[in-house]
Amino acid sequence: MNSQFADRMRSAHRSFIREILKVTENPEIISFAGGLPNPRFFPVESIVAATAKVMQDKIANPLQYSTTEGYAPLREYIAHRYAKRHGLKINPNEILITNGSQQGLDLIGKIFLNKGDFVALEKPSYLGAIQAFSLYEPQFHTATLRDDGIDTEQLSALLDQQPSKLFYTIPNFQNPSGITYSDAKRRATAQVFQHRNTIIVEDDPYGELRFIGQDLPPLKSYLGDNAILLGSFSKIVAPGLRLGWICAHNEIIEKLVIAKQATDLQSNTLSQRLVYQYVTDNDLDAHIATIKHHYGIQRDLMVSAIEQHFPPEVTYTRPEGGMFLWVTLPNPLSAMDLFNHAAKANVAFVPGKAFYVDGSGNNTLRLNFSNADAHIIEEGIKRLGLTIKQLLLEKTACHIAA
Amino acid sequence: MNSQFADRMRSAHRSFIREILKVTENPEIISFAGGLPNPRFFPVESIVAATAKVMQDKIANPLQYSTTEGYAPLREYIAHRYAKRHGLKINPNEILITNGSQQGLDLIGKIFLNKGDFVALEKPSYLGAIQAFSLYEPQFHTATLRDDGIDTEQLSALLDQQPSKLFYTIPNFQNPSGITYSDAKRRATAQVFQHRNTIIVEDDPYGELRFIGQDLPPLKSYLGDNAILLGSFSKIVAPGLRLGWICAHNEIIEKLVIAKQATDLQSNTLSQRLVYQYVTDNDLDAHIATIKHHYGIQRDLMVSAIEQHFPPEVTYTRPEGGMFLWVTLPNPLSAMDLFNHAAKANVAFVPGKAFYVDGSGNNTLRLNFSNADAHIIEEGIKRLGLTIKQLLLEKTACHIAA
Repeated sequence: MNSQFADRMRSAHRSFIREILKVTENPEIISFAGGLPNPRFFPVESIVAATAKVMQDKIANPLQYSTTEGYAPLREYIAHRYAKRHGLKINPNEILITNGSQQGLDLIGKIFLNKGDFVALEKPSYLGAIQAFSLYEPQFHTATLRDDGIDTEQLSALLDQQPSKLFYTIPNFQNPSGITYSDAKRRATAQVFQHRNTIIVEDDPYGELRFIGQDLPPLKSYLGDNAILLGSFSKIVAPGLRLGWICAHNEIIEKLVIAKQATDLQSNTLSQRLVYQYVTDNDLDAHIATIKHHYGIQRDLMVSAIEQHFPPEVTYTRPEGGMFLWVTLPNPLSAMDLFNHAAKANVAFVPGKAFYVDGSGNNTLRLNFSNADAHIIEEGIKRLGLTIKQLLLEKTACHIAA
Repeated sequence: MNSQFADRMRSAHRSFIREILKVTENPEIISFAGGLPNPRFFPVESIVAATAKVMQDKIANPLQYSTTEGYAPLREYIAHRYAKRHGLKINPNEILITNGSQQGLDLIGKIFLNKGDFVALEKPSYLGAIQAFSLYEPQFHTATLRDDGIDTEQLSALLDQQPSKLFYTIPNFQNPSGITYSDAKRRATAQVFQHRNTIIVEDDPYGELRFIGQDLPPLKSYLGDNAILLGSFSKIVAPGLRLGWICAHNEIIEKLVIAKQATDLQSNTLSQRLVYQYVTDNDLDAHIATIKHHYGIQRDLMVSAIEQHFPPEVTYTRPEGGMFLWVTLPNPLSAMDLFNHAAKANVAFVPGKAFYVDGSGNNTLRLNFSNADAHIIEEGIKRLGLTIKQLLLEKTACHIAA
């Protein structure tokens, strides 16, 4: 049967992260592995109320088929929010509703990528994007992510050497690294793409979750029609409703709508109506403020637990928002090794290798701080610190013995 | 910007049907164009009740991320229903939950089709399948659909000439034709695929909606692991919840799960929980019996209105179930011409050409009988009959004049 599968499936594997999540289903394990929002902040009561309300609509039934483009009032709301937050002028027709941002990535791959096309990535980059694009068989090339965003000299050299069809970036609180582009780096990055024919795919699922510092303008505000901006309700309302969106030039939306029709006709009618009813009847900004307050505390707790329990040779990012923090181990240590040892101490994380397309990143790992409640974070980091110290001792002992 | 799009988008267009549906938004138009279930039979109250109930689950939150494969109890329910209805032994692990059947078609295209691979279709075939597969750039070849199912001699000759990676079929109340495979034709079709390396994609969104005659076994009951069976809750519960499924051999499910992860991570958690709660707390068979009773009446009304109002030169199918009826106009007439004239009489349908990959079918059209309430059907068919008669007269007059 195997011989029947398409060539594109040859190198496609199940998500390493999703497989790890299965291991961490054991309730005794303290897991920093997932990318899950904290369910304490899901607006459960409001969604129940919204359901009762939208179901009274006998004209546009929320259980019926609806348009591929998405529920018009929801598209207007998203456009309006861009204007309010960033002064971006977006026409609601430039918004396509998708099944979470992940579908946005798939549809972008579908309409743009021929086999062999180049896609430029940050190093490290989001695994889900690597997977979505991979099925269209592009070639990836990468430029290093520094503390203030991508290395623009490297990026420029890369694009000089080989023009790229797409550049994929998460400028705010990146997954996996937690890194945010500085204002200067945003301008410098936009500069790199002046006079180039590359489409910038700006993925922004975490942008609203900033605990430290000021919101910065999206790359799209510098790049205009050459940038496609992706957003999501997963982290600010709830991920189980599977609602994200693509904001792009009309000509691109037109092709995306064709691809979306062929792919699954339309996004969930009920979810779209529920989210719209929720943002209409509730104060989304106040809700986001609550999430940020708690995630901020969880982030602070994790950073100070790391300061206390990790050996000084370990470096790590101090994210200004989002859900992830990125750890680099001193060089003899492998994160996969650490993962196996940490599992015995009932603590889990994601080894960083999965976020690199060039096989590097062996000594890196991703820690999620949004999902675990505060009291668990301290204990998990303590266990992880102990395991790192033990491994370091062993390596040093081996080194001396050898 | 155009030059940037992938080659696969060159011949991709917006669905003709979805464009027609926009025209028919005018409330004065009697539309037989859509493929919409009648919203009178959506279980609105039960879904509101189910929402309140599933939202009480604090352990597996219905607003959280969940597994790519789908909600386990729902997969078990589907497997159990196959056993009950057809004696098919399906392991719940052989079920993948999708965003409606349409996503099933896209994922099947994704894991199987290389550019240039052959896909065998019924002639006519479902437009959504043609669109989904088209984006993987296969070559289509077709065998004629007779009153009792596909022409197996033609199909056999086709496959002898050129082996096909996939054969796509809707054996029950086909969209667009309303045709159902007879028992003998099911066996003969299965026979065609003995000792061939073709995967049969058996799409069955309407199978539960039979008003006349007895349920017949799916092709999968003859073909086993070589058949992939697609199902949907769209026509028996509600389409806005976007829930369908793929039932296939483990090895195929494994690849589909990889493709689904890359495509949109997972199907809607809330929808899956709602539908499971709905089928647990309600009698789905009784609900389907109600739908069938009313659709049966609507179908009878449409058939007798056609008998009364259409000229005898027009032929049409008499579906045993489903939602569609297929009309063939006498040869000088074009359905696109009729569409334009009928629009002036405020009645709409889908010209059949869209369902053919070879440019034929100009004199065919599809009528939907599930969406319109009974009293509207009579009036719409009367207007359509008048328009056909007028066109026939004009053509004859021209013929005589010429």
